[in-house]
Amino acid sequence: MIRAGIIGATGYAGSELVRILTNHREAEVVWYGSRSYIDKKYHEVYQNMFRIVEDVCRDDNLAELAEEVDVIFTATPQGFLAGILTEEILSKVKIVDLSADYRIKDVKVYEKWYGIEHKSPGFISEAVYGLCELNRGQITPATRLVANPGCYTTCSILTAYPLVKEGLIDTDTLIVDAKSGTSGAGRGAKLPNLFCEVNENIKAYGVATHRHTPEIEEQLGYAAGREVTVNFTPHLVPMNRGILVTEYAKLKRKADGALPAYEEIRAAYEKYYGGEKFIRLLDSGACPETKWVEGSNYVDIGFVIDERTGRIIMMGALDNLVKGAAGQAVQNMNLLFGLQESQGLEMVPCFP
Amino acid sequence: MIRAGIIGATGYAGSELVRILTNHREAEVVWYGSRSYIDKKYHEVYQNMFRIVEDVCRDDNLAELAEEVDVIFTATPQGFLAGILTEEILSKVKIVDLSADYRIKDVKVYEKWYGIEHKSPGFISEAVYGLCELNRGQITPATRLVANPGCYTTCSILTAYPLVKEGLIDTDTLIVDAKSGTSGAGRGAKLPNLFCEVNENIKAYGVATHRHTPEIEEQLGYAAGREVTVNFTPHLVPMNRGILVTEYAKLKRKADGALPAYEEIRAAYEKYYGGEKFIRLLDSGACPETKWVEGSNYVDIGFVIDERTGRIIMMGALDNLVKGAAGQAVQNMNLLFGLQESQGLEMVPCFP
Amino acid sequence: MIRAGIIGATGYAGSELVRILTNHREAEVVWYGSRSYIDKKYHEVYQNMFRIVEDVCRDDNLAELAEEVDVIFTATPQGFLAGILTEEILSKVKIVDLSADYRIKDVKVYEKWYGIEHKSPGFISEAVYGLCELNRGQITPATRLVANPGCYTTCSILTAYPLVKEGLIDTDTLIVDAKSGTSGAGRGAKLPNLFCEVNENIKAYGVATHRHTPEIEEQLGYAAGREVTVNFTPHLVPMNRGILVTEYAKLKRKADGALPAYEEIRAAYEKYYGGEKFIRLLDSGACPETKWVEGSNYVDIGFVIDERTGRIIMMGALDNLVKGAAGQAVQNMNLLFGLQESQGLEMVPCFP
Amino acid sequence: MIRAGIIGATGYAGSELVRILTNHREAEVVWYGSRSYIDKKYHEVYQNMFRIVEDVCRDDNLAELAEEVDVIFTATPQGFLAGILTEEILSKVKIVDLSADYRIKDVKVYEKWYGIEHKSPGFISEAVYGLCELNRGQITPATRLVANPGCYTTCSILTAYPLVKEGLIDTDTLIVDAKSGTSGAGRGAKLPNLFCEVNENIKAYGVATHRHTPEIEEQLGYAAGREVTVNFTPHLVPMNRGILVTEYAKLKRKADGALPAYEEIRAAYEKYYGGEKFIRLLDSGACPETKWVEGSNYVDIGFVIDERTGRIIMMGALDNLVKGAAGQAVQNMNLLFGLQESQGLEMVPCFP
Repeated sequence: MIRAGIIGATGYAGSELVRILTNHREAEVVWYGSRSYIDKKYHEVYQNMFRIVEDVCRDDNLAELAEEVDVIFTATPQGFLAGILTEEILSKVKIVDLSADYRIKDVKVYEKWYGIEHKSPGFISEAVYGLCELNRGQITPATRLVANPGCYTTCSILTAYPLVKEGLIDTDTLIVDAKSGTSGAGRGAKLPNLFCEVNENIKAYGVATHRHTPEIEEQLGYAAGREVTVNFTPHLVPMNRGILVTEYAKLKRKADGALPAYEEIRAAYEKYYGGEKFIRLLDSGACPETKWVEGSNYVDIGFVIDERTGRIIMMGALDNLVKGAAGQAVQNMNLLFGLQESQGLEMVPCFP
Repeated sequence: MIRAGIIGATGYAGSELVRILTNHREAEVVWYGSRSYIDKKYHEVYQNMFRIVEDVCRDDNLAELAEEVDVIFTATPQGFLAGILTEEILSKVKIVDLSADYRIKDVKVYEKWYGIEHKSPGFISEAVYGLCELNRGQITPATRLVANPGCYTTCSILTAYPLVKEGLIDTDTLIVDAKSGTSGAGRGAKLPNLFCEVNENIKAYGVATHRHTPEIEEQLGYAAGREVTVNFTPHLVPMNRGILVTEYAKLKRKADGALPAYEEIRAAYEKYYGGEKFIRLLDSGACPETKWVEGSNYVDIGFVIDERTGRIIMMGALDNLVKGAAGQAVQNMNLLFGLQESQGLEMVPCFP
Repeated sequence: MIRAGIIGATGYAGSELVRILTNHREAEVVWYGSRSYIDKKYHEVYQNMFRIVEDVCRDDNLAELAEEVDVIFTATPQGFLAGILTEEILSKVKIVDLSADYRIKDVKVYEKWYGIEHKSPGFISEAVYGLCELNRGQITPATRLVANPGCYTTCSILTAYPLVKEGLIDTDTLIVDAKSGTSGAGRGAKLPNLFCEVNENIKAYGVATHRHTPEIEEQLGYAAGREVTVNFTPHLVPMNRGILVTEYAKLKRKADGALPAYEEIRAAYEKYYGGEKFIRLLDSGACPETKWVEGSNYVDIGFVIDERTGRIIMMGALDNLVKGAAGQAVQNMNLLFGLQESQGLEMVPCFP
Repeated sequence: MIRAGIIGATGYAGSELVRILTNHREAEVVWYGSRSYIDKKYHEVYQNMFRIVEDVCRDDNLAELAEEVDVIFTATPQGFLAGILTEEILSKVKIVDLSADYRIKDVKVYEKWYGIEHKSPGFISEAVYGLCELNRGQITPATRLVANPGCYTTCSILTAYPLVKEGLIDTDTLIVDAKSGTSGAGRGAKLPNLFCEVNENIKAYGVATHRHTPEIEEQLGYAAGREVTVNFTPHLVPMNRGILVTEYAKLKRKADGALPAYEEIRAAYEKYYGGEKFIRLLDSGACPETKWVEGSNYVDIGFVIDERTGRIIMMGALDNLVKGAAGQAVQNMNLLFGLQESQGLEMVPCFP
């Protein structure tokens, strides 16, 4: 039985880790770290866990925790883990970091977009970017530190990856228009996240400045083999869970000026995702909907070729708390411990 | 492996049966009955099941179905099963009926409230009312026909049952004010269920005439040992899932005029529910919230004694599609086949 | 032109006052008091008022404000106005208080339910309880201080008043089950009011302890001519605006044991509300819905007699920010200044 | 007093016309046309109008109606008006058509996108495209037929118009990603519009095929002085009202390769909208939100220049039922009768 500790167990991503691990047959949560609720019963903070979790919340002492568990999930604010991570800790325990601290390889890019100094850049090169479907080979029992991708990022990258990798689209024209449920904003008591401010409303935010942008660019850059710069625009949608991305790019025309055929595009997606359990390439004409993946670890992907404009519209949907956070973190844990990758992640999407 | 057939597999209750049985280790769905979608792939009707269910929808031929499966779930309109059930069918297959056809023992009461003639009253006495926590002893491998309780009913009865049974409240004063999510209204394309009609709105409906009333009265009447007549008022709430009931009754005073103490009331609940996996009696002062049970088979119950009025306010919450329909149906199936009662029903409530 | 000042102009009730007064032909807001946003443009706090209100927010100096305006609306926390009100201020300006400070005549009751000491009980007897339809005669140009009723209270009282007044129901059996949109909880950044906590959820709160209870009891007590004690249970509903109350009471039987006829009950409502512009007694069988009154000053009322239980179910719906707060406050202002009572309140309900 | 008739008065756009005209001082509705509800009281279909509208619904006899009113609003399905419009009718009455029948000048384009034959193409050239802010000069008492723009279209065009007109953006790169509330889908009882299908969900639909596309292209083409082809992708959002568009385009660089400055872009917007009552150009950095315009005739516009990609992100928000339908129709009516353009349209946005 893998012993897991969570730092930040009372945030939404942390609580989703608890939900998923509760049904995981080979792992158990033994440390519910939450600085705000120390000594309070976890189920008093999340009453859905009443009679399921009896533990109390504990502090976020990483060194002590490293002695007690096999894997630590850090669902913490940016800079937290970077500020306290040491070689000694990593020598004792595996870490899946749900924050952005080790996602971006160029520390200057991190510091620019996040506006904070990185306190332990030495670990960045070791960290594996935990987008399992793309980097599975590097996430092994030998791996110590996984940078779990962001929610917008996972959806944005996976939706475009095969076409970028195969050189089918002009990445200079790539635009990502993303829509997210409100749980992505966290459980902090902030005015813009009040029910009455979000309900019956939609808005863009962080336009041209959102921190997930460089992460998308870096990963798609690896696929393209060249630098990629995108427009990424997130929107806040009045729903709890779910991310939908709508991506636009010019298709590269063939020598004869023709656009690639539907089958050619589909084949590219099949090439990379044909064997993937958690990526569902929808049938022709079907558009992803966030509700169809709610509560599950699936990413649904669809696309439409627009002959009139020469563009392709790619669409992807996932549950931001599952494949966009806790589900992917558990998927990474499974790989880190040599378990079946889908262990504990067989949740069927919940509709309606 | 238990072979299960569902008639009405494309309604919300039917689709929830599919979701739950997909993760059930000892049962599988082999017949997706849906008159409206015959020959259409099930996952085209419910895209959440894409790559999970490959079957097509089939008709609702009960006789043919009885040859192929071990248990049939009928998630059908009132009168459907009563109109076609025969001894021959029941001799071949067990049936869990999610409609009201066999819930009410007095056929005249059924016919009055439902406004239709009962076509097979002969089976009513055989049918067991499938409120597992109360009638577990009668739901055995020898049982052929289970009348699965209604969603409002399950919540209303379980919330008050121990106090009625123990004679702690005056049932003549019992009032049930119920609030339900919209999935309870089904997937029919009706104007009152359109998003714009339900969203940002709350209303009572079926006031003094709702069909779940006699079902509540009959079952509580058994507990009371005398006839019970209640006010039951359902309300439509702008949310997908969940039922909350708020019940009011006068507490019976003791010889000295005092009200029963908190501990006495609590002891009554513990007496009946102390060992129940799916009924969670909340800590003192906690009020149930539908979100805390969403997606799970739990019923959460809490209560407050009002010294000023001498009344007790009992509150219960459940997911109308799970414990209020499909979850309880699977719980009944487990009992019918001698499986562990909670098999396939271990879903942790999903929050947020 | 009446010059109006608002203290608490950036709360939801305060902002609704701004919305309503903006379209009022004989009044204008000249002081937007908001301690939290002093010197900030009002439309930066409420961007809906962009290009409509150019003023900046100001402090809450009641004495200074009294020099500048004809009427002050205090949409402030309990205790604020009571703590600073003086005879000198009242000699200069009329006040419509949207808090509870002067609603309850018995200061001990106020102090018990609100848990704070009343700092100026001397003004309580002077204050008129501003439920316009009932107390219109006392709200005149000679009146200086109006205690604007609470949102739950307005709805609860108006729904039952005629039947209490006419002695048609047994007030000992009166139960008020109320459901409110989330704007009633205010604009404070509190965890329970976050979108993800409220959405897809319903719960009761303040069970047997909510502060609007004694206000309902006092006013209905005047109507009954005797003390009235009720159960009042508020619920939080995932919608922005709206209150629905469902009230239950035993009808008093006639000498021959018969219940009052529908027409008799209806006549009682017509007697008191027949001429009221803002109270709409619905046609037989129609149930109020909060959406049908949204954005307007209407209260919709309906009822059903349940012959089986001998109870009447009374239902009322209003917009908690309009008739439940700002609309009624403006209605009171109109009366205080001898204007047409409906001036500025002709908003047609907005659907959908 | 202008006498107005509405055909399609019981759809959402029609009912919004009723709401707005009820408060219009120089117009009144005298004919509530609704084929589905003939002889039913209008307020039985829309209970918000109880005690406000006493009329019954009538049929959709255009010829008879033309005798009785000064202006007809047709809020009807595509093809309805084109199928029955005659010179005789137009000689008697002005028509504001909320359908698409006369919006597109090239009848072949209309027939291709709408898939129906146009039955009266002879009137297309006469019809004025009623986007008031751009075509005000052609909407005069001499005008007989106004083609009221679509909801998506109004928002999409107004958001980009000044930059297209001034040649500041490369229209070949223009992408419109639009998000709409569900009232845009109408009041038809269709499964995809049920509460449980829309709530907690977001999806794209009509990708690369939505009928508002050619309307956007035609109007922006006039501004550009050349053909414009865009990607337009609508999304369904779980809210009642509101449209948000997020538009992307490459800014044209100056001779020195520099992007236009913020002030230059702003000046272009001010040039066209500086004097417009219903278009609010937001302050630098502010993003439009649909809630800030709800219930009003405003369009809020904001923009961000992304130096990294050389693109501008333009955002616009409006209420699809007001400025996107009924409000603009009344604005057109005001122009047609020489009234003040904003008459009856002074609604302050309703928040929250």
